Amino acid sequence: MPYFDAASSAPQHPVARQALLAALDEGWGDPARLYREGRRARLLLDAARQTTADAVGCRPDELVFTASGTRAVHQGIAGALAGGRRVGRGLVVSAVEHSSVLHAATAHTVAGGTVTEVGVDRTGRVAPTAYADALRGAAEPVALACLQSANHEVGTEQPVVDVAEVCRAAGVPLLVDAAQSLAWGRVEGRWSLLTASAHKWGGPAGVGLLVVRKGVRFAPQGPVDERESGRSAGFENIPAIVAAAASLRAVREEAESEALRLRGLVDRVRTRVPELVPDVEVVGDPTRRLPHLVTFSCLYVDGESLLHGLDRAEFAVSSGSSCTSSTLTPSHVLRAMGVLSEGNVRVSLPRGTTEADVELFLELLPGIVSAVRAKLGAPTGRESASVRGPRADGAAPTGAAEAPGAQSSAAADAVGAGADNQGGGEGDGGAGAGGGAGAEGGVGGGGREQEPALTVDALGKRCPLPVIELAKVIEDVPVGAVVAVLADDDAARLDIPAWCDMRGQEYVGERAARRGAAYWVRRR
Amino acid sequence: MPYFDAASSAPQHPVARQALLAALDEGWGDPARLYREGRRARLLLDAARQTTADAVGCRPDELVFTASGTRAVHQGIAGALAGGRRVGRGLVVSAVEHSSVLHAATAHTVAGGTVTEVGVDRTGRVAPTAYADALRGAAEPVALACLQSANHEVGTEQPVVDVAEVCRAAGVPLLVDAAQSLAWGRVEGRWSLLTASAHKWGGPAGVGLLVVRKGVRFAPQGPVDERESGRSAGFENIPAIVAAAASLRAVREEAESEALRLRGLVDRVRTRVPELVPDVEVVGDPTRRLPHLVTFSCLYVDGESLLHGLDRAEFAVSSGSSCTSSTLTPSHVLRAMGVLSEGNVRVSLPRGTTEADVELFLELLPGIVSAVRAKLGAPTGRESASVRGPRADGAAPTGAAEAPGAQSSAAADAVGAGADNQGGGEGDGGAGAGGGAGAEGGVGGGGREQEPALTVDALGKRCPLPVIELAKVIEDVPVGAVVAVLADDDAARLDIPAWCDMRGQEYVGERAARRGAAYWVRRR
Repeated sequence: MPYFDAASSAPQHPVARQALLAALDEGWGDPARLYREGRRARLLLDAARQTTADAVGCRPDELVFTASGTRAVHQGIAGALAGGRRVGRGLVVSAVEHSSVLHAATAHTVAGGTVTEVGVDRTGRVAPTAYADALRGAAEPVALACLQSANHEVGTEQPVVDVAEVCRAAGVPLLVDAAQSLAWGRVEGRWSLLTASAHKWGGPAGVGLLVVRKGVRFAPQGPVDERESGRSAGFENIPAIVAAAASLRAVREEAESEALRLRGLVDRVRTRVPELVPDVEVVGDPTRRLPHLVTFSCLYVDGESLLHGLDRAEFAVSSGSSCTSSTLTPSHVLRAMGVLSEGNVRVSLPRGTTEADVELFLELLPGIVSAVRAKLGAPTGRESASVRGPRADGAAPTGAAEAPGAQSSAAADAVGAGADNQGGGEGDGGAGAGGGAGAEGGVGGGGREQEPALTVDALGKRCPLPVIELAKVIEDVPVGAVVAVLADDDAARLDIPAWCDMRGQEYVGERAARRGAAYWVRRR
Repeated sequence: MPYFDAASSAPQHPVARQALLAALDEGWGDPARLYREGRRARLLLDAARQTTADAVGCRPDELVFTASGTRAVHQGIAGALAGGRRVGRGLVVSAVEHSSVLHAATAHTVAGGTVTEVGVDRTGRVAPTAYADALRGAAEPVALACLQSANHEVGTEQPVVDVAEVCRAAGVPLLVDAAQSLAWGRVEGRWSLLTASAHKWGGPAGVGLLVVRKGVRFAPQGPVDERESGRSAGFENIPAIVAAAASLRAVREEAESEALRLRGLVDRVRTRVPELVPDVEVVGDPTRRLPHLVTFSCLYVDGESLLHGLDRAEFAVSSGSSCTSSTLTPSHVLRAMGVLSEGNVRVSLPRGTTEADVELFLELLPGIVSAVRAKLGAPTGRESASVRGPRADGAAPTGAAEAPGAQSSAAADAVGAGADNQGGGEGDGGAGAGGGAGAEGGVGGGGREQEPALTVDALGKRCPLPVIELAKVIEDVPVGAVVAVLADDDAARLDIPAWCDMRGQEYVGERAARRGAAYWVRRR
């Protein structure tokens, strides 16, 4: 079964298994003890620390092993924030960090700190100037900034070297979450803290890395524990640590050639998928990216059906779509990028992926997407789906759409930055929504707003159904007329503008509604 | 090499290794994913949870896996305290809990909570009535009480069933640290939370258990994470969890017969060591104890030399003495019990320990102890060491010992409870200590205190040298006369009263001194 989800968890490198087995016999003792088993365990631990530090490019005494990458992030952020408390309680993160970073940021907010989120462009990349602005403009002095080395969902590499310089100039330590990239090489630049996770590079689960450069103020949080320089509580998992170190060295030895090879396979997916499957958006930076990872989204497809279809065809991938059983909201990364989230597929090739497996994927994908679209009644080619007239029930469709401040002239911007658009429809649109001609209420930019010619009621329908309903009716209205889509699935906020962009329609904006929101689209 | 330190980390059970190997192939995927590798991982995780819950005697949904026993304790205490915050911020623990519990308690104090420590008797056992008193008499309402199932240093079993009833009557949840006993059986009684650690029962490192009974208020602390019901952040270490569950089941199948067998071997050590080695105190409860663990302390021996001697003879044991390279203070457990801490040895037999290994230990131990004693110049048989007259240097020996409130009539109590005695000599004895006849200053109970006939200056000397110096001179003073020992090693506070008890001398008490403290002993 081709496993294309290395970014979630990489299959174990054979060296990891060998090292683990060897260390199970030698490394089960307590390294704090004075007898032979303890000394043996300590030697293994020290050697693993040296090997890992070499791979990271740090001193061994700057590196501790944690119980997971998530723990490394949580402990690193908490310790650096506490160490910098005298400076202030500001924290700066990018909008596309891993959830472990964002959850730590939320915890910091709950504890009374402030968090500034730096946005990204449509490829998912932050701008160093945006970090500079955030460091300057934060509500209170910034004690820590965080930036991933490369994005885990779309593969885009971040400008860590430049952001590190910006942080250095501002006297703020930078924590780099290197979970996705450490297998491929060191993180360059003058960062202050670094975190990573062994099971992402083919090591075992249960091992994370936390590196704190000498001179960085750091105050470990939580109860005191003497293990790992007081920075990571709990008995050391030495067999797993040994396996993590050995496998990191092994993947690094193959990294250059394997990166070149996988980059070629990923390029093939990036080029061919849009040729083979209509209405697909490939997302993320095409060149400054991880070698093994590519993400695309398919219109008129729900993520769960697509994953199941691929699973039946024996392909394991993951999805940032909202419409899977494990989540009800679309990926925060896709949202921050303002790209289509429906029918999202992340392909992350593990070491050793064959060309044949990638070719088979490309061969089978079009049929799987078509089958899902057919099942959902999605438009194919020219849209000519059932016409839906104006609604006649209680929730008068035109009146349900109000315009609190949004202007149709903002549409072009909105298409390019879905995340910025999120606040556009906020406010309480519940009261008075039954009125039939309230469209002028709240229009700030002057004249009467054109009322929708047609309203599609997709309330209660999950992604991608609101978009499918829209696609079915868009050609039923005259060019220049507006279709309003009533939807209460969050993904619509991202996917309707993205659909407009892909289909050459004009996204007018979001309007408040009694339930959910109304998304206005003008036929071009 | 006979490994007699199972209480630190047990050698892996063969089943743990087999299960780990099998699960490495099947369980490396992300159990949150929808494809085959994810489902397989989820199935393994669910099955391991069921197996472990059966062994604990709880529902699977009450049990989460943590990254270590220490983490289970930290997360359990923090979550239960936060869950009970509306009740109050009181925490009750025994004085002999594992350091992970005591460190969590300290963190709670730092965060503004209050901690009540319940003392133990000379066997290391708490009294249920003492818990009842602590729950009633705490400075603020108690949100959580903690009690180990059995002590990790001396093996004494705690009255968990009775303490659980006391807690229940007071409406306070009880967290039981079952790290040392879970291999041998379920923890009986109506406890509310339970923690344990797999590497203590022959499972792998990297797996702890946290059980929270339904209905117990629990609010996980730290950043949100969706893994393990939100109670344990980080990617699940499924191969290790599978190995932990399988090995727990395996050790339980052998538990009854193995407990019987090891109990016999431990009884042999308990009986024979005092016969074979002079001046030894075996500590902990002789019957209500863990089957595999025995602890004894040897007068006139430093822990580190003893461990090294045993290590050279290929025996791995641990020590609660202060005089090892890893710690400068004697074990808090021995201190709370008020027993001798010098020359301390904990023997904890792993599964499968042979009679021959125990016999070899008993054969070699006397020579190893003798060698250490000889090297230290310790008294052998009748003491007749070098006479030391009254000191003539700046720190006039008699005047250096003041008596701030302590009375010689308190001596009998003090011998029996070294821990209670700790405060006796506090206060600043630095000023005026040069005076030659200041002994009456601060005597509260009436008449002039008898001045020491001899003062031993053991300042700067580490355990067990102060006791050795004392033993060398005690017969140089007349019966009824007092010897003062000046010492600045903390262990003296515990070991001088213990020596008095073992050698039939009278411990008068502790007096403040310009440096360290003066310990007064009256020759009988």
